Amino acid sequence: MTKSRAAVVEERDAAFSYRDIEIDEPGPGEILVRVVATGVCHTDEITRHGDMPMPVPAVLGHEGAGVVEAVGDDVTSPAVGDRVVLGWPFCGQCEHCKDGEHRYCARLGEAVAGGFRLLGPRAGQSAYRTADGSPLHGHFFGQSSFATYSLALASSAVSVPDDIPLDIAGPLACGISTGAGAVLNTARPGCGDSVVVYGAGAVGLAAVMAATNTPATTIVAVDKHPSRLQLARELGATHVVDAAVEPDVVETVRDLCGGPADFALECTGVIAVVEQAVATVGMLGTCLLVGGAPAGASFEVDHLTTMWGKRIVGVLGGGGRSDRLVPTLFALYRQGRFPFDRLISYFDFDDVERALESSHRGEAIKPVLRV
Amino acid sequence: MTKSRAAVVEERDAAFSYRDIEIDEPGPGEILVRVVATGVCHTDEITRHGDMPMPVPAVLGHEGAGVVEAVGDDVTSPAVGDRVVLGWPFCGQCEHCKDGEHRYCARLGEAVAGGFRLLGPRAGQSAYRTADGSPLHGHFFGQSSFATYSLALASSAVSVPDDIPLDIAGPLACGISTGAGAVLNTARPGCGDSVVVYGAGAVGLAAVMAATNTPATTIVAVDKHPSRLQLARELGATHVVDAAVEPDVVETVRDLCGGPADFALECTGVIAVVEQAVATVGMLGTCLLVGGAPAGASFEVDHLTTMWGKRIVGVLGGGGRSDRLVPTLFALYRQGRFPFDRLISYFDFDDVERALESSHRGEAIKPVLRV
Amino acid sequence: MTKSRAAVVEERDAAFSYRDIEIDEPGPGEILVRVVATGVCHTDEITRHGDMPMPVPAVLGHEGAGVVEAVGDDVTSPAVGDRVVLGWPFCGQCEHCKDGEHRYCARLGEAVAGGFRLLGPRAGQSAYRTADGSPLHGHFFGQSSFATYSLALASSAVSVPDDIPLDIAGPLACGISTGAGAVLNTARPGCGDSVVVYGAGAVGLAAVMAATNTPATTIVAVDKHPSRLQLARELGATHVVDAAVEPDVVETVRDLCGGPADFALECTGVIAVVEQAVATVGMLGTCLLVGGAPAGASFEVDHLTTMWGKRIVGVLGGGGRSDRLVPTLFALYRQGRFPFDRLISYFDFDDVERALESSHRGEAIKPVLRV
Amino acid sequence: MTKSRAAVVEERDAAFSYRDIEIDEPGPGEILVRVVATGVCHTDEITRHGDMPMPVPAVLGHEGAGVVEAVGDDVTSPAVGDRVVLGWPFCGQCEHCKDGEHRYCARLGEAVAGGFRLLGPRAGQSAYRTADGSPLHGHFFGQSSFATYSLALASSAVSVPDDIPLDIAGPLACGISTGAGAVLNTARPGCGDSVVVYGAGAVGLAAVMAATNTPATTIVAVDKHPSRLQLARELGATHVVDAAVEPDVVETVRDLCGGPADFALECTGVIAVVEQAVATVGMLGTCLLVGGAPAGASFEVDHLTTMWGKRIVGVLGGGGRSDRLVPTLFALYRQGRFPFDRLISYFDFDDVERALESSHRGEAIKPVLRV
Ligand SMILES: [Zn+2]
Ligand SMILES: [Zn+2]
Ligand SMILES: [Zn+2]
Ligand SMILES: [Zn+2]
Ligand SMILES: [Zn+2]
Ligand SMILES: [Zn+2]
Ligand SMILES: [Zn+2]
Ligand SMILES: [Zn+2]
Repeated sequence: MTKSRAAVVEERDAAFSYRDIEIDEPGPGEILVRVVATGVCHTDEITRHGDMPMPVPAVLGHEGAGVVEAVGDDVTSPAVGDRVVLGWPFCGQCEHCKDGEHRYCARLGEAVAGGFRLLGPRAGQSAYRTADGSPLHGHFFGQSSFATYSLALASSAVSVPDDIPLDIAGPLACGISTGAGAVLNTARPGCGDSVVVYGAGAVGLAAVMAATNTPATTIVAVDKHPSRLQLARELGATHVVDAAVEPDVVETVRDLCGGPADFALECTGVIAVVEQAVATVGMLGTCLLVGGAPAGASFEVDHLTTMWGKRIVGVLGGGGRSDRLVPTLFALYRQGRFPFDRLISYFDFDDVERALESSHRGEAIKPVLRV
Repeated sequence: MTKSRAAVVEERDAAFSYRDIEIDEPGPGEILVRVVATGVCHTDEITRHGDMPMPVPAVLGHEGAGVVEAVGDDVTSPAVGDRVVLGWPFCGQCEHCKDGEHRYCARLGEAVAGGFRLLGPRAGQSAYRTADGSPLHGHFFGQSSFATYSLALASSAVSVPDDIPLDIAGPLACGISTGAGAVLNTARPGCGDSVVVYGAGAVGLAAVMAATNTPATTIVAVDKHPSRLQLARELGATHVVDAAVEPDVVETVRDLCGGPADFALECTGVIAVVEQAVATVGMLGTCLLVGGAPAGASFEVDHLTTMWGKRIVGVLGGGGRSDRLVPTLFALYRQGRFPFDRLISYFDFDDVERALESSHRGEAIKPVLRV
Repeated sequence: MTKSRAAVVEERDAAFSYRDIEIDEPGPGEILVRVVATGVCHTDEITRHGDMPMPVPAVLGHEGAGVVEAVGDDVTSPAVGDRVVLGWPFCGQCEHCKDGEHRYCARLGEAVAGGFRLLGPRAGQSAYRTADGSPLHGHFFGQSSFATYSLALASSAVSVPDDIPLDIAGPLACGISTGAGAVLNTARPGCGDSVVVYGAGAVGLAAVMAATNTPATTIVAVDKHPSRLQLARELGATHVVDAAVEPDVVETVRDLCGGPADFALECTGVIAVVEQAVATVGMLGTCLLVGGAPAGASFEVDHLTTMWGKRIVGVLGGGGRSDRLVPTLFALYRQGRFPFDRLISYFDFDDVERALESSHRGEAIKPVLRV
Repeated sequence: MTKSRAAVVEERDAAFSYRDIEIDEPGPGEILVRVVATGVCHTDEITRHGDMPMPVPAVLGHEGAGVVEAVGDDVTSPAVGDRVVLGWPFCGQCEHCKDGEHRYCARLGEAVAGGFRLLGPRAGQSAYRTADGSPLHGHFFGQSSFATYSLALASSAVSVPDDIPLDIAGPLACGISTGAGAVLNTARPGCGDSVVVYGAGAVGLAAVMAATNTPATTIVAVDKHPSRLQLARELGATHVVDAAVEPDVVETVRDLCGGPADFALECTGVIAVVEQAVATVGMLGTCLLVGGAPAGASFEVDHLTTMWGKRIVGVLGGGGRSDRLVPTLFALYRQGRFPFDRLISYFDFDDVERALESSHRGEAIKPVLRV
C-alpha cells in the first residue's frame, strides 16, 4: 500500500480537492510511478462535468510522467528507477490491439473511464481508496495522474530518454500525441497537400508542427486568439485565419488552399466548427474529427456533397501505438523538428484549478503541473 | 446533323414524352453512337423531379450501349462500327482526372447535369434541339441515352467485347459499377472482413456480387423485399435481413457480424437508412455513402462514437475509371464471378414509364430499354 | 510428462525413424495437443537435408491439428478439449509482433528452427527427450507435429470450428496459408489485375484459389505437371502454361496477360524460375518470393529493368496473423470459395516417407498424415 | 524554324561540341522554350557513353528551364512568355499515364531516348537538324536542353512561380525530383522510420532533405566524400557514414538504425553499393533502386533473406507526376524546408565538359549551365 496525495473530484462539477489517498501495491502487469509532472487536458475538465462516464469520487489526470517506484511480480519492463511517460491503456488481446491499433482497443471505454483495473486478477476493482478507507475511483486513462503516485499498466509506459526532461514528457501521453498522430498516423498528407487545423490549442498546434514533418505545403491554422495564431505561424503554419474577425471562415480557408482542402482537422470539439471543418474539404478530401465534444453532441452532414467523395474520419489520441508515436516525437523534438515544449506553461501541483482557468482564457496552451 | 427519337422531359415532374429530335454531328473528341439498349437508373427518376439541377426540356438516360456511327475529326479510338458502353464523362485536365480518379472530376457537376457540351470548341452549348428547332438540353451524364442516338465524349466510351451482348452492357456505365466499384475500388475489404449492404437493388446487389470477389467472409444484405433478399443470397450474401419485419435492424446486423461491421454500404439514399448504416460500423469501421438522396437532404451524426475511429466515406459511381472498372466487370461476368445479367429486366424503348414503375414496386431491379 | 510417439530425424539426411519420446508438461503460455492429423510440407523435407539450421536429432512437422489435452497454469485460451490448428509461433513483443505482423517476428529464426522453447521460464531448453532420456530437439515451428503429441504456444493455436474436420485443418497452419496469404495479405490485387503463379503445388494452388477471391481477372498457373495444371483450371486459373513444353514461358505468360503481369508469385523455390518470375512483371509490377529455396541460393537481377519501377517482395507464410488468416480460410472453404480440401491426400502416420515420395513425384499435392 | 546553338554529341564517347542547329516550329501539343538554364545530370554523361540507347548525333540535356517563345496551334497552357521547367515526357494514353503515374509511361523508353517526337502528326521524326540540314537527334527526355532553344511537349512543362529564379529550377525536372520523389512518393516513411541514403550527390542529398519532410527520425547518409557528408548533415542527416574509411558499412549503418533499416535508397548506381543497400534492410524493410547503373549491369540477391519479407523497389525519376512533385518542391523551398539551391554550382553554357569533370571529382554536386 502506498500513501499518495491526489486532486480528487468528489462529485460531478465540484472543484478538485486535494486529499490523502492510498493505492494498492502493483499486481501482475502493473507498475507504481512517482509522478514528477502531469499535463492537464481538456478531457480532464469535461470528465469532471460528466461528459465522460467516469464514476465519482475519482482521481483524474492522464498525462503523467515520472519514475517507476515498484513493479508487479511478472513485470520485466520497465524497471524500478526507469523514467517513463504513461500512454493510453489497452487490453492487448482484442483484434485492434493485436493489429497494433491500441487506441481503438475494443475495451477502450472501460480502460479510460471505468474507474477500476482493466486487467489482472483484480480486474473490475479500484486500487484506490481515501485515507480513511472510503471507496475511490482511479485508473482514469489507466493512470489517474493528478496525484503524487500513479498505478499504471506496464504495457502503457513509454521510456523517456535521459536527455528529455520529465516535466515536458507528460503531454505526449495524450494531447500532443492526439494532434501529431492525427497528422502522422491517420492523415499522412502527400506531396503538396493542404492541411487545415481548426483550433490552435495544444492539440491543434501539435498538428501544425506535425504537418511540417510531411510534404504538405499549405498549413492553415484557424483560431479566435491572435496570440495562438502568432504561435501557429512560428511553429510552421503557412497561413492563419482569425475566426473572430473573418466573416466567412470556410470561404477564406478554401481561398488559401486554392479550393477545397485536402485535410481539415477539427480540434475544438465545438459543433459549429465541426460543420465548418466538414465544409472545408471536397471530393477526395478528408475531415478528421480530433477534438472531443460534449456527451450526446451530434452534427449535421449534407448528404449530396458528402457522397461526392468526401471522407469524415474519427481519430482517437492520434491513432497507433504510444510506444511508436511517443519515441518518434521525442526524436523529432531533439532534432528541433517538433518544439512542443513551447506549448507548455508550468503550474504547481496544487494549482490545477488555476491551470484550467488559464487554459480556458486561452492563455496557457498546455498546462503542466509540477508534482 | 442526325435525326433521333428521344424520351424527353419537357418540364420538371412531367412524364417522359417521345419526340423526334436533332443532334449536331460529333466535333473534336466526340462520337455519335446508335443506342442499342440503355439502362434506367434511379438517378434518371430523381433528376426528372429536380433532385439534380439538370435544366429542362432535356433528354435523360445515362447507361447507354450501342454502336459508333460517326466520330469527330481527331478521334482515333473508338472507331466507327465499334461496340461501346458509355461511361461517366470527365474533363481529363483537373487534378483528380490526372490521377485517374475520373469519377471525382472537378467539373463533374457540369459534366453530368449541365445540359451542354463540357469540352471542345462548342463547350457550353447543347448539340441537341427538337425537330422544329427549339432548344433542348442533352449531354446528361455526357450521353442522354434515352434516344436512338447519343452524342458522347470519345474518352468516356468503353469497348464492349464481342462475346458480351450489347443489351446487358449499358448498366455497367453507372448502376452496376456504382455498387461494384464501391466495394472493389473504395472499400477493398481484407481477410475475414464483414460487408453490410443496405438496399438490395441493382447497386446493392452489384455490391454483394463484388464482395464475393474479395476476401470478405460475412456479406449481409438488408432490404424490405423478400424476393430481393432471396436473390441476394443466390448472388453471394452469407446472411440477409428483412428490414420490413426485423425490429432492430442495426442490432441484428451487428449480431450477424459478431460486433460492429467493417464496412456498411448505404445504397438506398433514404436518410433513416443512412443513419442505420453509420450506426452499423464501429471503431476503424467504414460507412460508405453510395446511394443518392433527395437534393438538400442531410443526416445527423453522433460526435462521440464517430470520433472514436469511425469513417464515413462518400463514393461516386464506384470511384476510379470506367475504362478499368467496366472491363473488369465484363471479365468477371464471363468467368461466372459476377452474374449481373440476373438483375436485368427488359422493356421496350417506349416503355420507360413502365420500367420506372416496375422498379418502384421492387419488381424490376435493373430495367433496360431495348432501343 | 507425456509419452508420445514421433517421427525423429536422427541425423542430417537420415530417414524419419519412429521413436517413443517424452515431452514436458506445458508451462506458462503453453498447451499440450493430441495430434489428430498433420500436413507434410516441403520445408520439413529441406530441413531434414539441412537447408534450415534446425539441430538434430529432432522432431519435425509443422502443420498439426488436434485436441488440447492440457494447458499451462496461466492459459485461459484455448481450453482443454478445444480443437485447434497450430499456426506459426511468434514472440509477441517485438515491433513486428506488436503491429500484428507475426510472420515477421524478429525472433522468427529461433522460433521456427531453434529446437528449443522460445518463451517462458524454460526458454532456451527443449521440452523433448527420447524415452531413454537422451536429448532431443523439438519445437520445430513451435510444434514438432510429426508425433502423437505436440507442445505448443497457446498464442499460436487457432480454434477449428465444429463443422471443419480436423484432418483437413493442419495445412492451414503453413502451406495453404502461405499461398493464400501472399495473395490476400500482400499482393492484394485490384480491378482487372493479372496474377501469375509459378508452381501449382499446394502453395501455388492455394494462391490460385485465393486470387478468385480478389478482383483479379487474369489468373495464370505455370507448372510442368499437366495434372496439376488441370486442377489449377478447376480451381480458378483462367489460363495455364505447361513449362515442360512451352519454349519461352515468360513470353507466353506475358502474351496471356497482354503485357507484363501485375503480380508474379514464385512458389517453386527453383532459382531459374525465380528469375522467370522477376522477368514476368514490368513497371509497377510485383514479383513475390513465396517458395523457399535451398540455403545459400541467390538469384541475379537486371538493374535497369528492375529500377524501372519493378518490385520484388518476399513473403513469409502468407504474412499477417494466423488468427485472422486461418479463420478467413475456414469461412471461405465453408462457402465453397476456397475448396482447399481438394489438394489433400491422406497417409498413415507411419508413412511420412511415402508421403514425401508421392509429393516429390508430383502426385500428392498436400499430403496429410492421420496420426 | 528556329535557329539554336547546342552542345552536340557527334558520336558515342565523343566530347560535346557546340554547333548551330535548326528546330522545327512547335506542332500540336508542343512548345518552343528559350532555355535560360539547364542542369547537368549523371544520365547525360552515361548516355553519351552508350548506357542509354539514344542514337547519335544528338542533343542531350534534360533539366531545362526557360521561357516559352512559341506554342503549337492547340496549346492553351503554357502560354507564350510563361516561365517553365521541363519535366519528363509521357504519352498520356497508357494505363500508367491514366493513373497519374507518368514516370512509368509504357512508352517511356522512346519518350526519353528515342531521339524523335513521341506524339503528334510528326511522331517518329526528329524536329532537329544541323545548320547545314544534316539529320540530328533531339527530344532527349522530350527536351534536349543543352541548347539555346528546346522543343518540348506542353504537357511536360511545369510553371515556375515568379519568386523562383529560373536558374535554380532546371534540376527539379530530373535529379532533385528523383531523390525527393523516391522518399515522398514511393517510400513514404512513417513515424520513427529510418532512411538510409547511399550516395550524397544531388539525388541522395535531395532524398535527405525530403526525409526531413517526413516523420522519419533516423536519416543516414553514406558517401566517400567528407565534404558531401558534411553537407548532408547540414541538410538534415542525423548520421553520416564515410564509406571510404568505414570497414563494414552495412554493419555500421545497421548499428545507427538500431537494426535493419526501414528504407535504404541506393543513389549511386554502383553494383557493389546496390548489394550493400539490399543488405541494409531486413524483414518488412524496403530497398529502393534510385540511381542508374551502366547498361547490362545486374546484381545478386540472396534468396532466403529476401524472401523473409524484404522489398526491393525500383523508382524512376521519383515516381508520380512532375506537375505535382515540382510545385511541391518549389513550395517547400520557399518555406525553407527544402534548400536545394545549396546543391547547385553554376557553369557557363560552353562549359558542359568542365561541369561534368567537376561533378566527377565530387566537387560540383548539381552543375547548372547558364545558357
Ligand atoms: Zn484491446
Ligand atoms: Zn487528453
Ligand atoms: Zn476532371
Ligand atoms: Zn445512375
Ligand atoms: Zn516477435
Ligand atoms: Zn511449411
Ligand atoms: Zn504513357
Ligand atoms: Zn536525370
